[in-house]
This record gives sequence, structure tokens and C-alpha cells, in this order.
Amino acid sequence: MSRYFPILTWARFYTPQTFSADLMAAVIVTIMLIPQSLAYALLAGLPPEMGLYASVLPLAAYAIFGTSRTLSVGPVAVVSLMTAAAIGNLGLETKTDYIGAAITLAFLSGMLLTLMGLFRLGFLANFLSHPVIAGFITASGILIATSQLKHLLGVTAHGHSLPELLTSLVSHLPETNLVTLTLGSMTLVFLFWVRFALRPTLTKFGLPSGLSDILAKAGPVAAIGISTVVVWAFGLPEKGVQIVGTIPAGLPPLTLPSFDPDLWSALFTSALLISVIGFVESVSVAQTLAAKKRQRIDPDQELIGLGASNIAAAATGGYPVTGGFARSVVNFDAGAETPAAGAMTAIGIALAALFLTPILFFLPKAALAATIIVAVTSLVDFSILRKTWRYSRVDFTAVAATILLTLGFGVEAGVAAGVLLSIALFLFKTSRPHVAEVGLVPGTQHFRNVLRHEVQTDPAIVTLRIDESLYFANARYLEDHINTRVIGDDPVRHVVLMCSAVNEIDMSALESLEEINQRLSDMGITLHLSEVKGPVMDRLKRSHFLDDLTGSVFLSQHDAWKTLSSETSKPTAA
Amino acid sequence: MSRYFPILTWARFYTPQTFSADLMAAVIVTIMLIPQSLAYALLAGLPPEMGLYASVLPLAAYAIFGTSRTLSVGPVAVVSLMTAAAIGNLGLETKTDYIGAAITLAFLSGMLLTLMGLFRLGFLANFLSHPVIAGFITASGILIATSQLKHLLGVTAHGHSLPELLTSLVSHLPETNLVTLTLGSMTLVFLFWVRFALRPTLTKFGLPSGLSDILAKAGPVAAIGISTVVVWAFGLPEKGVQIVGTIPAGLPPLTLPSFDPDLWSALFTSALLISVIGFVESVSVAQTLAAKKRQRIDPDQELIGLGASNIAAAATGGYPVTGGFARSVVNFDAGAETPAAGAMTAIGIALAALFLTPILFFLPKAALAATIIVAVTSLVDFSILRKTWRYSRVDFTAVAATILLTLGFGVEAGVAAGVLLSIALFLFKTSRPHVAEVGLVPGTQHFRNVLRHEVQTDPAIVTLRIDESLYFANARYLEDHINTRVIGDDPVRHVVLMCSAVNEIDMSALESLEEINQRLSDMGITLHLSEVKGPVMDRLKRSHFLDDLTGSVFLSQHDAWKTLSSETSKPTAA
Repeated sequence: MSRYFPILTWARFYTPQTFSADLMAAVIVTIMLIPQSLAYALLAGLPPEMGLYASVLPLAAYAIFGTSRTLSVGPVAVVSLMTAAAIGNLGLETKTDYIGAAITLAFLSGMLLTLMGLFRLGFLANFLSHPVIAGFITASGILIATSQLKHLLGVTAHGHSLPELLTSLVSHLPETNLVTLTLGSMTLVFLFWVRFALRPTLTKFGLPSGLSDILAKAGPVAAIGISTVVVWAFGLPEKGVQIVGTIPAGLPPLTLPSFDPDLWSALFTSALLISVIGFVESVSVAQTLAAKKRQRIDPDQELIGLGASNIAAAATGGYPVTGGFARSVVNFDAGAETPAAGAMTAIGIALAALFLTPILFFLPKAALAATIIVAVTSLVDFSILRKTWRYSRVDFTAVAATILLTLGFGVEAGVAAGVLLSIALFLFKTSRPHVAEVGLVPGTQHFRNVLRHEVQTDPAIVTLRIDESLYFANARYLEDHINTRVIGDDPVRHVVLMCSAVNEIDMSALESLEEINQRLSDMGITLHLSEVKGPVMDRLKRSHFLDDLTGSVFLSQHDAWKTLSSETSKPTAA
Repeated sequence: MSRYFPILTWARFYTPQTFSADLMAAVIVTIMLIPQSLAYALLAGLPPEMGLYASVLPLAAYAIFGTSRTLSVGPVAVVSLMTAAAIGNLGLETKTDYIGAAITLAFLSGMLLTLMGLFRLGFLANFLSHPVIAGFITASGILIATSQLKHLLGVTAHGHSLPELLTSLVSHLPETNLVTLTLGSMTLVFLFWVRFALRPTLTKFGLPSGLSDILAKAGPVAAIGISTVVVWAFGLPEKGVQIVGTIPAGLPPLTLPSFDPDLWSALFTSALLISVIGFVESVSVAQTLAAKKRQRIDPDQELIGLGASNIAAAATGGYPVTGGFARSVVNFDAGAETPAAGAMTAIGIALAALFLTPILFFLPKAALAATIIVAVTSLVDFSILRKTWRYSRVDFTAVAATILLTLGFGVEAGVAAGVLLSIALFLFKTSRPHVAEVGLVPGTQHFRNVLRHEVQTDPAIVTLRIDESLYFANARYLEDHINTRVIGDDPVRHVVLMCSAVNEIDMSALESLEEINQRLSDMGITLHLSEVKGPVMDRLKRSHFLDDLTGSVFLSQHDAWKTLSSETSKPTAA
């Protein structure tokens, strides 16, 4: 039971102390989440109240089904951008259709996550490599910031890729509303100042570090409050400043997703990408935070937790949600002990939806856009390019392609290309394994690459160390490699394959070995193996290969060397 | 120069002896190829003369560009079936369109092969695993034989999958022409008798083995000759026996492929599959035969050779060709020394096209179908199912799926599914690497799996041997594995990762190791590595990982054990 309902593991140990710790964290996260939820809904192209709705029941659902004690679920920037891209592609005309599609997307994503969890398919997320994710997040950050520039300029612009967005922005540049631009720029400067300069300043003036931290976190709320008052006091809407306007007050409505099969098939790929990206981001922060308290995250149950959250979002007028990085860290730092903190945050947001919406009427969209831009600057991190360039060109290629394709063709093309390219590059790498010709290091029992070390060799014996498992993609490469090595080298009488790094020999490789054995035999050359691992040997014993092998299987390469070199030296000695 | 024109390497050493050896082989292969080329054209749904046309210039082109001395290029059964499937899918109405599509398919396939050769992309063919090919060839053989039953019954039937073919055959069964069925069955029985019983009988009667061999090879020609005479003598066409009819006499015509972009895009995938399957089959027989004479096959140049052959086929009214297994073996056994044997075979077929076509007028299609059925029985070999079942369930799954999907949905679906499934299964396997917890075998320096051996361990030290390269697909698996292992096991102070079988650590795995290091450190556990390979270590040194690593990198696992166990025993001793 408690495997599928992790709440059962912590709820019975719940104490007043835990309650007060959770409540404190919930208050801080609520203050942070109100502007974020409005802003991310705007980013997703949805009415702001949907951001609030997505921050109530989904949090409660996660509290029941999630395994992380401190993950803060709700609207996040990247998933909001992906939602905008997914629904934007559909070419829907009415606002109602757009909202319906967002709800359906949350439902599909919730179902996919839950099914992946029930069938323990969490490992599928592993095919998103770290560099691809890093590149994707960086490119998404740039797309998000660019997509918000229109609000700062007070113009309309569209597009899901950088070229589209920039072209659209440039063509609308003459319509820039200067009042909006001034307001937006000032908010932006204020937020950057709060983010990068306020905390050190406050600390310098002697405030306790914890308090200056909270003040810095409250920056977006202050920006939104001040800009709203300014808009109202100076009657800026008449000057063309776009405001949020009427947000219906009240608890989240009960909603149903669409069951239109055409819509489902149109949204399926997007839902899958959103699910996987959301899951990967969420589980990674959850694991990092859990490890700090020696707690355990069950990735498959996390899928169910996030699935339940998204189904809850679909049922209550929300849109796709996942665990947010920044908010979860705040929740953790603020002392949250159990998922109950999330449930209390949900109550906080519900209260905001009930009572705060009237005062948000004059909230300028430019201020929300500014909070988004400042929030996503932390996503943009090109250091992955430098790091991968130094570490591995293959990884660099995957990152660079992901960044370029995400910027150039949008989030879905980018992430799909990143995944496929990573797999293709991996297969390519393993299809041309490192094969070293080795010789004996004099005075030892070690065998090393003849190209790198001064080693002892015998013209009649070729010893090849294969640094890769043998499988279909490299089986023929090995055939070619050995063919090329021995043809024309007439003194060769023995070929030894040193298999210490061969973790697997599949059927294709087995047949290639049989082929190699046969062809070498046709040339009068004997094939031997050395240092074959136990499980690989077990499997070879179930085939005919060992019966047909012209040579022997040596336990160690040194045995092979001793036996064969004494044999080959006999005729020359005689 | 001679890299791209292998003819230059052998032509200057050409002697009268080589000429007479090549001529002898060419005569035998020509006799074998005449009925085959007609029959395979019929199988491809094309007029019989196209089979002859595909056996003239393509052979000459291969003689110039190919690297195998003995490969016999021309129409083959599986590629003919794939041609029928590819063009059948287009739903073309006129015979002219159908022929045009076949010529275009040969051209596209030739271009793809040549480009793959020039860009040295031959390794792409490696992603067709041996078991997938074996399953595909077996299923193709069954499809081919089934598709020919209609000619034996004298009915019409269509379909590219087994269910389609059988349904169509059964529904036309009442229309069976009994004269055709009798003729076809007798030809079939005769051919099977020639194949399986004639040679031993002849040898028993004292004929030299070589002569009885040639007589057995001439079986199809005899069958075609006799059945043609029977049809003519008894006026069987009036009884409803389908005959080949008028074959235009003359050399192959010059033709141009279509350059219609719609046709190209419709044929592209088929052309790619035909190219890859054709190449893999061809290069494998070429390498096997070359090895017997210590000759070398250059797979990338083979792509160019086969590409040139297919372009030649497109230019002279042919259809896709490749190297045939049975014919190449015959060519080799008959003593062919150079590709000139192929060029002489081309002259033989050209003479047949010029002078033999009138006498083929009464050739019954049932007899051609019988030669096809007998030829493809050698393709059907279910032993791969048994072999893979014993050897590896993963390979078995791939074979079984390939056979079932090829039979159930046709050749293209089958081979595509086989390739994708092999890759998916490989990725799945490597995404869950074998990780063994090891301990010291007492009295040795060896470390073995604690579950399988009586070994010495220390509750404070967990040593995990990872039997796989670390890359994105298994990086998080390792994180989970280590997390699960250490959480709740409070005495643990050290985790050692034994990396003797780790051939690669990619950026994702590096970040996972950093994460593992950090999380273990949060739990007060030190992370160490042991037996890291040189190239992997070189790469790690280019990152910050080694600076951040809480523990050490030990040259051998025994060093790690000595150092750490002496450390952990101190506090208990104190």
C-alpha cells in the first residue's frame, strides 16, 4: 500500500513540530508561487488564473502520491513554454479551444506519466542525456526570455523559434509603446538589482542572512505590487499599457479534458515530450534534495506522483505541471519536512484565488514578463558547451545540435533531435570500438598497446585487445579489422583476442567470431581468446563456437603468451 | 586511382591462363543465370527480358568498380521480392509506369550505394544484426515461395504479406488450371530430384564428382527446356497454360530513370532498404570467398561497385541487382580468377538476349515459378530460432519479431522493425548494466561477486564492479543503484566503484558520478574509484571530477581494499 501511497509512510509520524516547520515553508513558497503561477500561465499563452488553478489540487495530489518530501510541484517555465509550443502548433482559433487543449495536454501528460510509473518505464527518461538536457534548458531559457520581450515593448509578436520570434518582434518594433517599455524596463532593472545586489547590501547593513534572503525572494512580489499600484495611480491602461484585467475570483473550477481522438493524436508527441522533460527535471532536483537528508526517491513512484498532479491539473482548470527547481530549493531551505508543506501551499494559493484576484486587475503584463525574464536567466548556461568541448566531442556535438535546433526550430524539434542524435552518436561510437594491438611489458605479466609502450612481441602472434562489448553494430568492424591486420602479414600464425573488456557477445558477434575463425583457418592462422569473463564464457558454452575454435581459450593473456610464444619459437630453434 | 578502380590492380597481371579460367566459370554461370534472370524478373512483377537486361551492363560495371574477384552480380531473389513490394505499394496502373518505377528504383538504389561508398558509410549496414538478417531472409524465402504458388496453380493472386497472399490464393483456388498444376508440379518434383538426389546417384554410377556437379547445376535449364518443348508440342497455351510469350530480341535498351520528385520520395525508403539488404548479403559472401584466397574486400569500395552496377541497370532497362550467394559460390568453385569472369558472363547473357529469346516464347510461367521455389528453399532456415533461443533471448526476440513482422506485414515493415528492435533491445540491455557487489577471495588479490563466492567483506566498505561502459542511458541507473544500496545501511563509510570493464564515461555519466559523489558526501560516505582504464582516466583528468572526488582513485582494487580496510579497522581497534 505505502509503495503507491507514500503519504502513509510519513503521515502517521506527523507532529506539531513538523506542522510548524511545514507551515513556515508553505508561507514562503506561496509568496513566491503567486507571481510565478500568473507569469508562467502568461508564458503558456493561457489566462493568468490557470496558473493559480494549476497550483492548488496538483500540489495536494503530489502530497499524496509523491516520494519527495520537499519537491514543489506547479507551473514551471520550460513546461509552460512547451505547452505554448504544443498548443500553438494546433492552429486553434478560439480562446476556449486553446484552454481546452491545455487541459487535455495536462490530462494526456498525466496519463502517460502514470502509465510509465505503473509499468516501471522510468528508465526511458534516461535516454535524455545530461548534455542534451542542459542544452535544451539553456535554449529554452533564451526562447522564453525572447518570447517575453513583446510584453516589455507592448507589441504583439508570435513564433516558437528564435528566428520566428525575432522576425516578428522586429516587424512590430515601430508599434512599441514607450510607457510600457519604461515600466517594463524599470521592473526588469529592479528585479535584477534585487536578485544580484540586494542580498549582499542588506547583509552589509547588518541584517541577518536569513532575513535578507527572504527579502530578496520577495522581490518579484514587491515588483508586482509596486507596478500594479503605479499602473492604477497613473491610469496607465489609457496610455496603452496592457494589464491582466479581470481574473475570476473563486476556487479552481471542475473541468474535463477533451476526448476528441484527433486532438489526442495531435497532442500525443507533445505530451510525451512534456512528460519526459518534466519528469527528468523534477526527479533530478528531488534526488539531490533527498540525498541531503538520506531520504530515498523512487523514480517510478515519482512518475505516478507527477502523473496524479497532472491529472489533478486537468480536472481543475490547470495545465501541465512538474516539480520546479528554484521553488523546491526554497521549500527545502525554508525547512519543509513533509509533502504537507505542499498541501499547505495549495491552501495558500486557493486563498489567493478566492480573495486576491480583484487587486491583480491593474497588474501590468510587462511586470510579469520582467519576472519571467529574470527567473529564466538562471536557466541559460552556456558553460556546458565549454565543458563538453573539453571532455568529449561526441557530447559537445549533441549539446550544440540541441541548442541550435531548439533555437532554430522550437522546443519539440530540439529535444527530439537531441535524443535521437545522442543515441545515434552512442551507436556510432560503439560501432567502431577501440582495438589495441598489445605486447608484453618486459619483466611483468602486463600487456600494453604496442603503439604506446615498449613491449615484447612475436611476429607470429597478433594479440588484439577489444575495448568494447561485441554486438551487431561492431561485429563486422572486428571482421574487417582482423582481416586488414593479417592479410599480407605472412609470418602470422596466431591471433589472440583479449576479451577483458568484453561484457557481452551477442549472436551477431558470435557469428562474426565464427566467420573470423573460419577465415583465419583458411589462411592457416589459429584463433585464440583470452581473459573471457564468466557470464560471456557461460554463453559461449551454449553455442558450437568453442568446439569449432581452432585455438584455445586462455584464462589470462599471460598464459596465452607463454603457451604460444614457446610453440612458435620451437620451429625457428629447430 | 586504383582505390576507386580496382580493375587497375588486376588487369595488368591478366594472363591467358587467367582468361581461360575466367571463361570456363563464365560459361557455367551464364547457363545458371539465364533461367534465374527470367524467373526473378517474373518474381519482381516485371517482363522477363528485364531480368536479362539486369544481367549485362551491371556485371560489366561491377567488374570495373568491385573489389571481389568472384562475386556474381545480377538479379537475386530477395531483392526481386523487395522490388515487387516497393513498386506494388505505389498502386501504379500501367505496365510502362511499373517498368519506369523499377528502373528508377535501381537508379535511386545505385545513387544511395555510391554515396554511402564515397562517404564511407558502409558501417551503417552493421545495424542490421545477423539474426535479424537471418530471420528476414527466411521469412522472405517463405513469402517468395508462396507468391509463386499462383503460377503453379495457373490463377491470379496478389499481396505482399503471407495473410494477403494466402487469402488471395484461397479465394482463387476454384479457378485452378489443372494442366498448369500438373506441369508445374512435375517441374517442381524434377527440380527437387535434381537438387537432392541426382548428384549422389550420378556419383554412385561412377561419374566424376565435378561433372555430376555441373549436371546438377544444369537442372533448371533442363527443366525450362523440357517444359518449353512440352508446352509447344502439346499446344498447352490453348489449355490455359500461361507462357512467357514474346521477349523482344536485342541488346538491352538505353533507358533513363524518372526524375519525378513524388516518385523519388515514394521510393526512397524502399531504395534504402534494398541497398542495405543487398549490400549486406553481397559483402558477406564476397568476404567469405575472398578470405579463402587471402584476398581483401574493401566494404566501402564494394558500395561503389554495387552502386555502379545499379546505375548501369537503370541505364539499360534493368532493375535493382546485387551479388547473389549461390551464383557467386558457383563462380568461385568453377575457378573464376578475376572480375573479368563477370564481364564474360555479361557477354553470354547479351548473346542470349540477342539470339535465344524466340525459343523462350513457349516457356511456361509455371516452370519458372518452380525454379524459383526450389531456389528459395535454401533461404528458409528456422535453425536461427533454436540457436538464438539457446544463446540469447534478446537475439531470439529480434529474430522472432523480424520473421513474424515480415510474414505478417511484408518485407519492408519486417526489416525496418528488425533493425529498430535490435537497437532498442541493445540500448535497453546497456541501460541496465550488470553491477556486482564484490569482495576479496581469501588468500588472493582477486575480487568476486559476493552473491556467488565466499568472499571477505567489510561492513564499512561497499565495492561495486560495473560491467558496462557508463553513458547517458545507464547513468541514472547507477545513481539509483548506489542510492538504494547505501541508504539505510548506516555502517557504510566507503563506496568503491571498480571500473575494469568501463570502456567509456560520457558527460552524462560524469555528471552522475559527480552527483553520486556529492550525495554520498552529504551522507558522510567517501567515493573511490579503482582500476580505471587509461583512456577513461585521461578524459576524467580533463574535468573537475577528480578534484571534487571525496576519495581516491586506486590503481588496483586490491590497493583500494588494503588502504580502506586498514583505515576502517582502526576506529574499532581503538
